[in-house]
Amino acid sequence: MGKLVIVGTVAFDEIETPFGKTDKILGGAGTFIGLAASQFDVDSAIVSIVGDDLPQEYLDLLSNKGIDLNGLEIVKGGKTFYWKGKYHNDLNSRDTLVTELNTLADFNPVVPDNYTNADVVMLGNLHPAVQLSVINQMTERPKLIVLDTMNFWMDSALDDLKEVIKHIDVITINDEEARQLTEEYSLVKAAQEIHKMGPKFVVIKKGEHGALLFHNENVFFAPALPLEEVFDPTGAGDTFAGGFTGYLAATGDISFENMKRAVIHGSNLASFCVERFGTVRMESLTKDEVHERLHQFKALTQFEIELK
Amino acid sequence: MGKLVIVGTVAFDEIETPFGKTDKILGGAGTFIGLAASQFDVDSAIVSIVGDDLPQEYLDLLSNKGIDLNGLEIVKGGKTFYWKGKYHNDLNSRDTLVTELNTLADFNPVVPDNYTNADVVMLGNLHPAVQLSVINQMTERPKLIVLDTMNFWMDSALDDLKEVIKHIDVITINDEEARQLTEEYSLVKAAQEIHKMGPKFVVIKKGEHGALLFHNENVFFAPALPLEEVFDPTGAGDTFAGGFTGYLAATGDISFENMKRAVIHGSNLASFCVERFGTVRMESLTKDEVHERLHQFKALTQFEIELK
Repeated sequence: MGKLVIVGTVAFDEIETPFGKTDKILGGAGTFIGLAASQFDVDSAIVSIVGDDLPQEYLDLLSNKGIDLNGLEIVKGGKTFYWKGKYHNDLNSRDTLVTELNTLADFNPVVPDNYTNADVVMLGNLHPAVQLSVINQMTERPKLIVLDTMNFWMDSALDDLKEVIKHIDVITINDEEARQLTEEYSLVKAAQEIHKMGPKFVVIKKGEHGALLFHNENVFFAPALPLEEVFDPTGAGDTFAGGFTGYLAATGDISFENMKRAVIHGSNLASFCVERFGTVRMESLTKDEVHERLHQFKALTQFEIELK
Repeated sequence: MGKLVIVGTVAFDEIETPFGKTDKILGGAGTFIGLAASQFDVDSAIVSIVGDDLPQEYLDLLSNKGIDLNGLEIVKGGKTFYWKGKYHNDLNSRDTLVTELNTLADFNPVVPDNYTNADVVMLGNLHPAVQLSVINQMTERPKLIVLDTMNFWMDSALDDLKEVIKHIDVITINDEEARQLTEEYSLVKAAQEIHKMGPKFVVIKKGEHGALLFHNENVFFAPALPLEEVFDPTGAGDTFAGGFTGYLAATGDISFENMKRAVIHGSNLASFCVERFGTVRMESLTKDEVHERLHQFKALTQFEIELK
């Protein structure tokens, strides 16, 4: 069993989609990553910060999935990071209506002692300086460091972002962000440019259009499962990252062949995440359901052509 | 060896992309379909109409690929259909600058006698009444009738389009057009609605995002090959259709398993088409190049996951 340390927000989300709206519910990159990774045989810990306004039941939910919360700081009298957003009709774009950093503004992540030797580090979307500080706390070079980021940090903290990117093995980034970071429209060229910045592996997420894994001259593609209805895309990218790193930590194999499987597992879990609001679907997800949908992924993508 | 009859334009295209512009060059759906299908062991004929302004070398080019042109009417003193378009920077959208129907305005397709018993009929994008007239000329029900169409006919001849769709086996249509035709945003639901209109197989083309094949509860997905540079998307959809039908006519097998292979062959050929202006890349394409890229498609999509 591998050890996975996850750094990312545990948050209140308030979401409106064409299908309805929520009150404040459990969200955050760390939450979605942790829930997805918990589908695998892995010891995981979330490093994050919340206020004491976060309901105990949310913490229990994560603990009950076997996630170590010793690295989750609870600030007495503090308020938890809060994001409110509204999706457009096509669900491919959204407006952020409210962002309250609250306790996150003063987040100094502390990796629990028994996780400073983790096999895999998953750096969820946060200020790149925070991500770097986590890397620096590791007492042994992890087998794999994976980083997720977004355009916000390219606009506001590009130098910090470029610095942390030097120290990681895998970056997960969406197509528009890859283009912004590299000023290359072609995703093949963008991946080549990102390789030069440090990461040996580049995962470009294309939302409903799937995900590409690049490693030097090798490319692998996993589609998103075509669904009758996408209900709420919130957390899909983080769920992908959680499935990806959870599988790699559980198997301990970071070959390209195994990373292909990790991309499939990540896509598979993300296909569940979007079926309900927030974390609802991931909370109840069973191994049998996951397994059955992997069969669908195989049917969707596998073919036989005789080649010399 | 199967027989394939192709109905579609043979035209002058004038194209501008971010990478350059052309004079009037050979284009048209029938042309691209024919060139792609000629990669397979198939007897094919193009049914179309042109003016005598079309250079003989263009006709020779098609003949030299083994394409029967007895169904290609050459109107003395007439002018060939002409389209001029300019692609936007992302190559995903374009403006039509000029459309001159010319001889196409009075096109009454005549299927050559020795092709009225063709195994596969490929109805390229044309007025649906023209497409229907070709079906009606077949003396035996073809093994497979495939139709391509576009939003223009949904806007201008929807009743005719719905009529011809009743008589076909496979429709190829892009994602936005599938949504327009069915008023369903989800492509899964759109495919279900199109099934109800007649076609047992629905191919939804997503351009750079690949293609989906639906058959009742079965779904298969083929990505577009990630390219360093897409130079000119003109004809990619028709090339896909030509590869799809050429392979099916050559193999004579219209099972879902074989249709999956046909989708891969179509995607594979389309990946070449977009590398140069117009038909340039397809003219010189060798079987070895095609074969080598099929290996890339396998590497891109195939994975091993143990499932119970």
